[in-house]
This record gives sequence, structure tokens and C-alpha cells, in this order.
Amino acid sequence: MRTNAVKAHWAQGKPAINGWLSIGNGFAAEIMAAQGYDSLTVDLQHGVVDYGSAVQMFQAMGASGVMPMARIEQLSPSNVTRALDAGAMGVICPMINSRADAEALVSYSRYAPNGIRSFGPTRAMFSAGPGYCGNAEDELICMAMIETAEAMDNLDAICATPGLDGIYVGPSDLTLALTGRRYRVGFDREEPEMIEAIQTILTAAHRHGIKAGLHTGSAHYACRAVGWGFDFVTAGTDVRLLAEAAGQTVRSVRKAHGA
Amino acid sequence: MRTNAVKAHWAQGKPAINGWLSIGNGFAAEIMAAQGYDSLTVDLQHGVVDYGSAVQMFQAMGASGVMPMARIEQLSPSNVTRALDAGAMGVICPMINSRADAEALVSYSRYAPNGIRSFGPTRAMFSAGPGYCGNAEDELICMAMIETAEAMDNLDAICATPGLDGIYVGPSDLTLALTGRRYRVGFDREEPEMIEAIQTILTAAHRHGIKAGLHTGSAHYACRAVGWGFDFVTAGTDVRLLAEAAGQTVRSVRKAHGA
Amino acid sequence: MRTNAVKAHWAQGKPAINGWLSIGNGFAAEIMAAQGYDSLTVDLQHGVVDYGSAVQMFQAMGASGVMPMARIEQLSPSNVTRALDAGAMGVICPMINSRADAEALVSYSRYAPNGIRSFGPTRAMFSAGPGYCGNAEDELICMAMIETAEAMDNLDAICATPGLDGIYVGPSDLTLALTGRRYRVGFDREEPEMIEAIQTILTAAHRHGIKAGLHTGSAHYACRAVGWGFDFVTAGTDVRLLAEAAGQTVRSVRKAHGA
Amino acid sequence: MRTNAVKAHWAQGKPAINGWLSIGNGFAAEIMAAQGYDSLTVDLQHGVVDYGSAVQMFQAMGASGVMPMARIEQLSPSNVTRALDAGAMGVICPMINSRADAEALVSYSRYAPNGIRSFGPTRAMFSAGPGYCGNAEDELICMAMIETAEAMDNLDAICATPGLDGIYVGPSDLTLALTGRRYRVGFDREEPEMIEAIQTILTAAHRHGIKAGLHTGSAHYACRAVGWGFDFVTAGTDVRLLAEAAGQTVRSVRKAHGA
Amino acid sequence: MRTNAVKAHWAQGKPAINGWLSIGNGFAAEIMAAQGYDSLTVDLQHGVVDYGSAVQMFQAMGASGVMPMARIEQLSPSNVTRALDAGAMGVICPMINSRADAEALVSYSRYAPNGIRSFGPTRAMFSAGPGYCGNAEDELICMAMIETAEAMDNLDAICATPGLDGIYVGPSDLTLALTGRRYRVGFDREEPEMIEAIQTILTAAHRHGIKAGLHTGSAHYACRAVGWGFDFVTAGTDVRLLAEAAGQTVRSVRKAHGA
Amino acid sequence: MRTNAVKAHWAQGKPAINGWLSIGNGFAAEIMAAQGYDSLTVDLQHGVVDYGSAVQMFQAMGASGVMPMARIEQLSPSNVTRALDAGAMGVICPMINSRADAEALVSYSRYAPNGIRSFGPTRAMFSAGPGYCGNAEDELICMAMIETAEAMDNLDAICATPGLDGIYVGPSDLTLALTGRRYRVGFDREEPEMIEAIQTILTAAHRHGIKAGLHTGSAHYACRAVGWGFDFVTAGTDVRLLAEAAGQTVRSVRKAHGA
Repeated sequence: MRTNAVKAHWAQGKPAINGWLSIGNGFAAEIMAAQGYDSLTVDLQHGVVDYGSAVQMFQAMGASGVMPMARIEQLSPSNVTRALDAGAMGVICPMINSRADAEALVSYSRYAPNGIRSFGPTRAMFSAGPGYCGNAEDELICMAMIETAEAMDNLDAICATPGLDGIYVGPSDLTLALTGRRYRVGFDREEPEMIEAIQTILTAAHRHGIKAGLHTGSAHYACRAVGWGFDFVTAGTDVRLLAEAAGQTVRSVRKAHGA
Repeated sequence: MRTNAVKAHWAQGKPAINGWLSIGNGFAAEIMAAQGYDSLTVDLQHGVVDYGSAVQMFQAMGASGVMPMARIEQLSPSNVTRALDAGAMGVICPMINSRADAEALVSYSRYAPNGIRSFGPTRAMFSAGPGYCGNAEDELICMAMIETAEAMDNLDAICATPGLDGIYVGPSDLTLALTGRRYRVGFDREEPEMIEAIQTILTAAHRHGIKAGLHTGSAHYACRAVGWGFDFVTAGTDVRLLAEAAGQTVRSVRKAHGA
Repeated sequence: MRTNAVKAHWAQGKPAINGWLSIGNGFAAEIMAAQGYDSLTVDLQHGVVDYGSAVQMFQAMGASGVMPMARIEQLSPSNVTRALDAGAMGVICPMINSRADAEALVSYSRYAPNGIRSFGPTRAMFSAGPGYCGNAEDELICMAMIETAEAMDNLDAICATPGLDGIYVGPSDLTLALTGRRYRVGFDREEPEMIEAIQTILTAAHRHGIKAGLHTGSAHYACRAVGWGFDFVTAGTDVRLLAEAAGQTVRSVRKAHGA
Repeated sequence: MRTNAVKAHWAQGKPAINGWLSIGNGFAAEIMAAQGYDSLTVDLQHGVVDYGSAVQMFQAMGASGVMPMARIEQLSPSNVTRALDAGAMGVICPMINSRADAEALVSYSRYAPNGIRSFGPTRAMFSAGPGYCGNAEDELICMAMIETAEAMDNLDAICATPGLDGIYVGPSDLTLALTGRRYRVGFDREEPEMIEAIQTILTAAHRHGIKAGLHTGSAHYACRAVGWGFDFVTAGTDVRLLAEAAGQTVRSVRKAHGA
Repeated sequence: MRTNAVKAHWAQGKPAINGWLSIGNGFAAEIMAAQGYDSLTVDLQHGVVDYGSAVQMFQAMGASGVMPMARIEQLSPSNVTRALDAGAMGVICPMINSRADAEALVSYSRYAPNGIRSFGPTRAMFSAGPGYCGNAEDELICMAMIETAEAMDNLDAICATPGLDGIYVGPSDLTLALTGRRYRVGFDREEPEMIEAIQTILTAAHRHGIKAGLHTGSAHYACRAVGWGFDFVTAGTDVRLLAEAAGQTVRSVRKAHGA
Repeated sequence: MRTNAVKAHWAQGKPAINGWLSIGNGFAAEIMAAQGYDSLTVDLQHGVVDYGSAVQMFQAMGASGVMPMARIEQLSPSNVTRALDAGAMGVICPMINSRADAEALVSYSRYAPNGIRSFGPTRAMFSAGPGYCGNAEDELICMAMIETAEAMDNLDAICATPGLDGIYVGPSDLTLALTGRRYRVGFDREEPEMIEAIQTILTAAHRHGIKAGLHTGSAHYACRAVGWGFDFVTAGTDVRLLAEAAGQTVRSVRKAHGA
């Protein structure tokens, strides 16, 4: 079975740089796969992506060395199964609020007797190669999103879940959950209480020997996150990268000529 | 019928800023449509786009005020017809080498008795509204690409073609055509002979009272082109904007941490 | 954020006329969007539509003023989230049988601290514009379908759910649920007991200050529903409109000539 | 090989009623296929349809007895080949202006030595069954559109083309071609000169022993056309049927209540 | 309503031969539909298939007499409803572990008052014809997969569920569940304990008067299964059939010439 | 730029084994790509494939070492350009009948000054890597199909065309062209006159220093072709491989049990 390059990075003590895919298109994924990311996560929860486009995206990034991952719609056996069967080398599951949620997530991603994932890696057998069944547990990544007040309350219990590879922080929801609507919505939090919350999660993860990931909205904040010790930082979403680069281009031409 | 905003710009003596779409996806087009471009051209010649995705892209940019245009595959009646019937407010046709080519292009885009476009603007009747048949000639834009040695030889004859709204310069092919492979391939030419060729085309267009467009690869060169007098400048391709912005993000995170 | 025209209608005491989309195609949606409806609901429960086609349909109706809505597959966080993130300005959820169901539905459609909708309106930020997070609660519509015996038993509890904008009556299922298979299946009920049940729901909704919607199969019955006081009437499904109009055409030509 | 029901109709001296498909969707085609038409023509010239959707439409109408046909983009070998290989039981080719055009069309639809159609009916072998190569000439229909002044001049030469099954009148283009823009654009011509032109074509076809088809915009006009002797009448386009039925529904509800 | 040919086979005491579809493509399904299978099951759980491609596959196999079936993603009302509304004549549900699971499955597939399937067979009304609501219970097939240790413990309770038509054995998961990872993963078990487990399930099904199905990986094992008394055997998956046939072809050419 | 493995094979004096793709689906292509072929040719002429599915197929086979090729619709600049821009490492063009046809084909596949291919390898720059413009002539393959009587007459002139890499024999059309309908249609000709014609083409190609390819319908015939000296043999079409393997499976189960 294919080796998971993100896990290999981690084994060397290096953080992985992840890109985020919300445009449901194979060629857009192929472009992103050529930019040097360690992994690319297809966002099935909030992205304009469905299963069919996710498969095309995984296929299109197959020739590069980038690890294909998926943020699934919500916690459910078939969401986990279908993402992994389609060739994802890891899943990020939103809204993990309790130890029970985390245990369910792990169990959905492992074959019996260690879990209840149903066997049938139809595309993964082609994309990840022989030996899939025996090696899936070692090579696939399973991350739980911490983004609610309830999850904060259960942080240690979640982080201690056997088989969980890491947690992933969703700063937008976490901010809404912890501070209501006092602050602007979005990533790259600057409020001390939010930075503290984010670091609390990071510390908890490391305390339990698992990895910590953070969703960021800029290279600058991704660098800070790496500095804090995050093992997996999302730096760049296709939507935002394209929008900002195009917007800036138009504005600079207009400005020069009042066009 | 819907008024063509690019023509309205021109009527006010202002250049139009055009974006280029090579990712065949409605949402990518919708993102680009929100960035302030005057027009967006779907590239059916070289883009990873086909008729089906072009329609989705036109639909997705419909809510914005941006003018949908198409660069067609090659000169043929059905290529022109299908782009316009799908709602394009203008077509750019590659490889127009002679007066006969230019006349054919114009005739494919106009209804009898002024041309041979077959009537059936199936989607355009919804996207461009009532009065389409009578106003299409005034509102649609028809541009011929000048990008070969033969076209340079026939420049005045092409520019004088009745009904042609403008010419569009393809710097990559023009450079290959005029200088062989002496220089790197691509846009944003800096060689004096190429700048001269580009300006020769611009001058010819204006001499014959039609508009001139240029394909560029950067805001900087687009500004120069406006400065030279170009009426229509392409500043930004979705593929390149996304690739460069993502690549830069990854490089800056890696550089900071050796991640 | 874009204003919800259906709510604006309601604020003026006027009913909204809704169309129903079961053909999963952007152009079919675009045609329907040009016919004067106040809203169009994409049917993800029973329609031949999936997420990918729903997005194209929302994009295709974006240029018109019609409000895009979705009837979701079933009650679940990701079904609500994905429809709204894709740009729906309202969701209709089938099979709401209890107060708990209704509260869950509301909570899935609102951001913390008022609900548990995860933040990430990826397409909606483009289609509904800035200020989405702060205004979503006011502008989005959340309707619960009343179509089972259990729901009838819990009618007042459901209608009193804080944050619920309205209920929507599914006459086919309601008839099966209340009368077994005594009557033909379908809309536009004429049985006194069914009319009474429908009016009971209408009255309950209004008693609790929320809106009432009805699915109908004809302009005639839609008119009756408006006369009864319904605030939201579905008049016309793409499938049925197309089938009936085509069938009638064929029959009238055959009849004239025995063709 | 499957028998062509349209030809069977003709053999019995009966006209065929054809429906027109411009919505590129399998389910819309399936709905139309259930309405009693003898044939359904997928419009690849002006419809919002491409090859991929045409295949789905042919598949979706496969279970009904309706004959799948295609109006192709323009005269070219691959346009004819690909429509027939995909399972069309007939092609209608636009803009046939001369005997040479008509001969080319016939030759593109027949295997050597009677033509130059390349052999490879990949889907047709499944949809039309065994014996395809030997029977294709007898069962497939090849019709030439007469819609230009040039075609009118060459009417007899075109109609006398060996192997041509019939001609098909496009009234919109024919009116533009013969009368300029003196009249409204569209079908169902009432001007005496246009009725005369249409009947001239009909008579020429019959004089040469081939069939005549007419595109109409209403059951009423289709009935007239049958009365005149047309063998193939298009009565009903999906786009127009849906638009009119929906528009009428909305108007009647609005009118009743000022909704 | 269309008669279910699989049930007709069963009524005559004959087993049904089922094919398995994991390539989400209409034409691939059409090819499989021409090979003589009694039914073809679209695999929505593990196949590279989603709802949109399943619809195209059902449409493409509509012209053949083969029964379209679906293995759904997991037990949920909308998974059952959407497969049946799209025209499946039967559903196979994975991971049925208890009597409660089995009862839920049956209830999701039947209309009130016998179940809670919501009415709206949008495509099925076209593909399965009139009388759908009244006859669906008799003609549709509902099968529960037995593939876990828990299901083995509840075997009789599951098989006795009123309305369940049969059970279906998934040998890969069953082997993992009962024997851990002692044996290779996959179909066509040869271990005595697994053969015994499979036959235990078969016997239990027949004891309760329902049908038994088995997933196999070869014609040879399918024959054995029929010999054991299985009523429904899956013999051939598109993925494996294509891979093996192509692989063998390449190997035999390479072998002959060292190409 | 990526090295063309087929050319590398040829440089070592070894024939290339090619597979044929007529099912327009990425996953089907991915399955085929894992079977050991040297190249896989997407059939845009007769396959149930269009540009959009071809791109997905090229992406899906990208991770394997197999060379992606395309048989294009017909000779035209945009057909050649779009296939190559999408990442094809070679094109096979049907119906090359004369030296002029062959020269046109070569010129459409080469950049100025050696041809008239327009520059814009949008996907190829990602799939084939840097240095594309300068190396395309050396790495891309350009093959002309010989399949008509006219081509046989011009065989030497065609084979001597500068820049042509090889010819490809289409036995079905060639048989129809040379012998009318005296023999069954199809591949794997056994008639002495057809074998002679095929060998005449092979000899001509080698005489002019170019490669010769043959389309076959079986491993057996492919072996014979290699034995005769063909450099490129197509052994296996997805459609036929799947159909035959499935048909055989069903027949053997039916035979065993009369199922």
C-alpha cells in the first residue's frame, strides 16, 4: 500500500502543509497539486464539491505526490467509507463533540475487528495499491475537528481516543461557539481568548501523543501556527486564493488607468 | 436585449478589463465574476472547457454584471453559433489569417441577410432577453485573433472587414510565427521587434476604426497595454492566478519553517 | 446580504408563488426562473436532482430575482448546511414529526450560539453577498413539512418552535398517513377530511404566528389555497408541466389527423 | 437491427409526430418520451445540449418506443458519425444549400462503398441491435434542412439526391433568408409568401419521392402542416412547452389573487 | 406497474443471476445490461458511483429487461427513498445488525400505513409505470445484508422481519467480522468455518420463508452458491471483469513476444 | 517534458501494446491503466466519449506510467489541438486519404514555424511538465489512419510525409473500402486479400522509416500482428473486454444450473 507522506513528514518531526479544495473540479485540483503542498483536502462539508467531483479531484491529483484527503460532510459510517474507498488517504470529520463521537469516527475508518468500516476500497485498491486491507490502519489519517464548546469540555477525552491520529481546529466555528458573535467571523483569530483556546487544543493533542492541525486563511498565520507547534497547517483555499489574486489584478489595472 | 457593457465602456472611451477562464467549472467562473472584471472570456480553444461547462460558466456568471464571452475552438459556423446561442455576448476567433477568414467570421455571427448565422438563440433568449434577433448585431462583439505571419501580411484587409468589432492579439503564437523559437514562448513580450509588431496591429485596428485587444499575463503588462491604447486587455487567467497564489503561499510557509 | 423576496412578500401580506424543480438541470431551472415565480424549490428528496445539479440550478437562476430554495433529503445537519452553503435562501425539511425534530431543524440552520450550523457558506458568500453570517437568521427561511399522523398530533408543539418560519403541507403523504390507501395518491385533495386536515394545519401555523405553505398540482388548487389563507403555494412542477403540455400537444395533433 | 418506426409510419402513409429536445438532460428526455411522440430529435445545433448529454438522452428514451434522432451541429463527417454511433436512428442536417452538400450528407451517413461513414457504431450496436452494418442504410433517416435562398435555388437538385430520405424546413431561417427582417422571427409563418415557399419545398420533395418535414411552434400549425401533406411535423419543443405551461400557471394564480 | 422479473424467477423456483456495477457510467451499465443478467445492482456503498450516475445507469439499462437494483450507502430513509424513486426495483442495505435495523429498512421502503416511505417516485413513475403506489410493496425487493457478528447473533430475528424479501451475504465483511484478519480478505471463501457461516445464513433465510443472496467473485463460486440453494447470486462485477480480461490480454501478448 | 514511453519502446526495437477506451469514464480508464498497457487510446471518433470525459480519463490514468493517446474525431486543427492540450501524448487521426491530409495532420500538431498548432497546452503543461514547447515535436506521436481505397492509392506519399511518426490500420473500414460488403464487418481479418493489404501498409510504413500500428480484436491477432512486424498493436477495447467477460460469466452460471 502507498505510504502516507503526511505521516512520513510527521515521523521526521516536520509539519505538513495542507491546501484546501472547495472548487469541485479535477483540473483545479490538478493545478493545486502542482504547487508543492504535502496534502490537499477536498471539502465535502462546505465546499462546492460532491462525491462525483471528489473522485475526479483525487484522480487528477494522483500523478503528483500530494496526499489526497477529505473533510467529510458529517459523522456517519457511509461518509467515512465513501471518502476512503474513493482513495482519500485521510479524513477530517467536523463537529466531534464527545469521546463517543471520536470513537465512532475511528471505528468507521477501521476494518473489523478494530472497527466497523465495511470492506470495499473500490478505487483505493487502484490508487493506494496492494496490501490495502492490512495497512490501512497505519497509513490512513483520521482527524477530529474541535470546534464547539462541548468539544472543549471533552477535549482530553477526545484526544485520548485510541486510534485517533489528530485533531483539527476550525477557528470560525470555534469562535462562534466560544464567543458568540462578539467578533468577526473567520479564520486567523487575533483575540487573546481565541489564541488561548487554540493553544489549549494544541497542547491537549500533544499531551495525548496525537497531532494537531489548524485551518488558516493566510501564509502568515500558517507560519505562526507552525511556530506554535502545529503539525498540520492548512495554508490556502482554492476559492480565496483565486478570488484574492484576481481581485488584486483587476484593482491594480483599474487604479493605473481608471479603466 | 441586454446591453453589452464592454461596448458601453468603449463608447465612453474606456478600455475593458477582461479575465480569462480555462478551468471548466461554474463555481470558479462565479468567483472570477465577483472580482470586478468587465468581461470574462471562456477559452474553448485551449482551456480545459467544453460546451457543457461553458454553459454552466455562463449561467454562474449571469447574476453579476460581467459580460460573458467565448474564445471559440476554431473558425466554423457551428462554433460561433453555439457560443452565441449559449449566451456569449461576444466571440474571439483564433487564427484569422485573411480577409476571407474575417468575412466568414462576421457572417457566422450575423443573421440573414447580413450573414448566415442560423436562428435559434435557445439560452440567449433567456440570458440576453427580448429583442435578441433585431439587436444582436449591435450588442454582440466579434473579434478576430491576429497571431500568424499570414495575418500580419493581411492586417489592413482584415481590419477593414465590415462588421468586425475588433482584433485580438495572441502574443505566444505571434512570437512563434514571427520569430520562430528564438525567444521563450509566452505572453508579455519584451523583445523590441515583438512590441513593434503588437503596436503595428494596434495602430492598424485604430486606423480602420475598430478596437484592439491584447492577451497579457500580468497586471503590469495589462497596464502597459492600456497605456499604449489597447481597448480590451486580458489581465489574469484563472489557471495562472490560482497556481501562482498557491505556489507563493506554500513557498512562504516552507521558507519560514523548512516545513 | 441579499434580501429574501419571499419574506418581503410576506411582510406586505402577500402570498408567495413557488415553483418546484425535479429535473436536475441548470437550463430547465433557468427557463422556470423566467416565468414569474417568487421562489423555486429544488427537490433533493424526491426530484431527479443531486447536490451537483442543485448548485448548477441555483447558479442558473441567479440572474433572475427568484428566490432559490431547497427541499432537503431528510433531517440532518449536513443536508441543511450543504443546501444553504450552496446558496439556498430557504430550506423545506420533510417528515418533521415532533417538537424535537423541529428544534433540530432550526438549530441546523442557525449559527452558534443560536444553533449548530457550521460556518462555511462557500457559494452563498458569492450569491447572497456580504454580511451573510450576521443576517442569515433574518433572511433565510426554514420550513417544516407536516405530513404524518405523528406530526398532526404534535402540530401545536411544532408550530410553536422558536425560529421556525413556517410549515409546509405535503398532501400525498398526509393523505396516506391519515387515511391509509382509501383514496388515490397525490395532491389537490378533495376529500372533506383531507381539506379539514389541511386547514387545521393552516390555522395552527397562523395561531403561532408562522407561515403556512401547501404543495399543489394545479393553478386552480393553488388559487384555492391562497383563498384559504396559505402564504406560500407551490403551483407547478417542472416534470408535470412539461409532461402535460407535451402530452396535450401530441394528442391534439393525433386527434386532428389520426397521425 | 431495430426497425425505424418513423419509416414504418411512412410506409403506411401516415405522418410522424416529432418532439424537439433542447434541454440537455436525460430525465427531461425520458418525460418527453412518455408523451406519445413517434420520434424525438435532440438539437445539437441550437439546443443547450452536447454530445455527452445527447447520449444520456438517447439512453433515457431507450425504454420507450420513440425513435431517437439528432439535428447535428453542421455538415461534417464526425458530426454525422458521432450522432449515429451514439444511437440516433436519424439525422437532420442544417444549412444544406446545394446538391454537393446533400451528397456529402448522404455519404457521411452510409458505409463504403455507398458512402464514407467510418465503421464503429459503439453504442448503436447495443441500442439498435445486431445486423447494424447491413441494415443501417434502410433503417436510418437522413434529412436535409432547406432554410436558405441558395437552397431554394437548388431545391430540385437537392431533393433528387440519391439516398436522401427527406428534407426538413426551418421556417425561422427561411423567413430571414427570403424576406430579410421584414417580419417577426420565428415559426408558424402566416405570410402568404412564406406559406408559398414552404409549400414549394413540400411539393418538390414529393415530386422527387422523398419525405418533407416542418418545424412548427404549436399543435395548431402542426395540424395544418399535416393537412398540407407534410410527412414529419415537429410539434412541441421542451423549452417552449415548459416555459409556456409554467408562465400560464403563474399568471393565472397571480391574476386570481394579485399574489 | 412493471413486474419484477427477479420475483417472477423466484416464483418459478429459479435463482436470479445478478451483476454488480461499480463503474458509475451509463454506457458501462448498458453494456452489462446486454449480457443476460436477471438483475444489475448499482453499488452506492462502495462503488465509484453517486446518485447522478446511478440515475444514468438506470436509464441506460431501461431498454433491456434487466431489473435495476441498488445497494444503498447505509441504512437511512433518504438513501432508500432516493434509490427507489430513481427507479430501482429493489434495494440491498448493508450492515443490518438487528431486528430493529431490519424493521427500519422495511419501513423506509413502504408507504403508509405500512411504512414511512415518503411518496414521490418521480422517475419510477416513468420507468415502472402506472399503479406504482399500490403495487410497490409487491414488486419491489428489500434485502438486508448479513455481514457482522452482531447480525449472526440476531439472524433469526432479522430473517423473521415482516416485509423483508431476503438477506444478502457479504463474504468479505463477514469473514473479517467472524475471523478477524486470520484469512485473506475477499469473496469466494474456502475456509470451512466461513462456508458453514454462509450456509447457516442461507438455512435461516429459507427457514423463515425469505430468499437468500450471495456476493461472489467468480462464475465458479456462483455456481456453487446456486447448488447450495441460494436464490440470488452475484456473478461478476464490472471492475473485476474488465480488469481481469484486460490484464489477461496484455499478459498473453507480452508473453508471446516479450513486447 | 515527460518522455514518451511508446517512443522509448520503439527506440529499443520493441512493439507497444495499446488498449482502447470507448467508455467515457475516468474510473474505467484507471482500471485499464493498471493492466500493463504501454499506451491507452481514448476514442473520440467512435467511442462514447467526449472532450470532458477524455480529460477525466487522462487525469485518471496520470498516476500510472501508461501513455495517454487520443483517436480524434476527424482531421481538423481544433481536434488535434484540444486532444494534445488536454494531455494526450499522441494522436491517431482517422481517414487520412492523401499526402495533403497527412501534411495537414502533421502541421496541426506542431508549433510554428514547423506547423500551425496554436500554443496553449493548458493541461499538458501540468501533465507533461516543463519544456513542453521545445520538446513536443520529439515526444508527441502523430499517426495517420489508413482505411480507404484512396489512402491505399496514396500509401507511399502518405508514409513519406515529414514529421509523421506512423500509420495505423483500421481493418473494419479498410475491408469495407476494399471489398465492399463481401465479408463480415470487423477486425481480425482472415481473408488473404485483406491480410495482404494490411501487410502492404506495414511494409510501406517501414520502407519510409515510420512505425505501423494495427487495431485488433483479440490477443491472438495482436500476437500475429507483432509477429508480422507491427510496432503498435491495439489489443483490447474496454467495451468488448467487459461485454465478453460478463457474457461468458452469465452463460457459464446459466449453463450449470439452468438458472
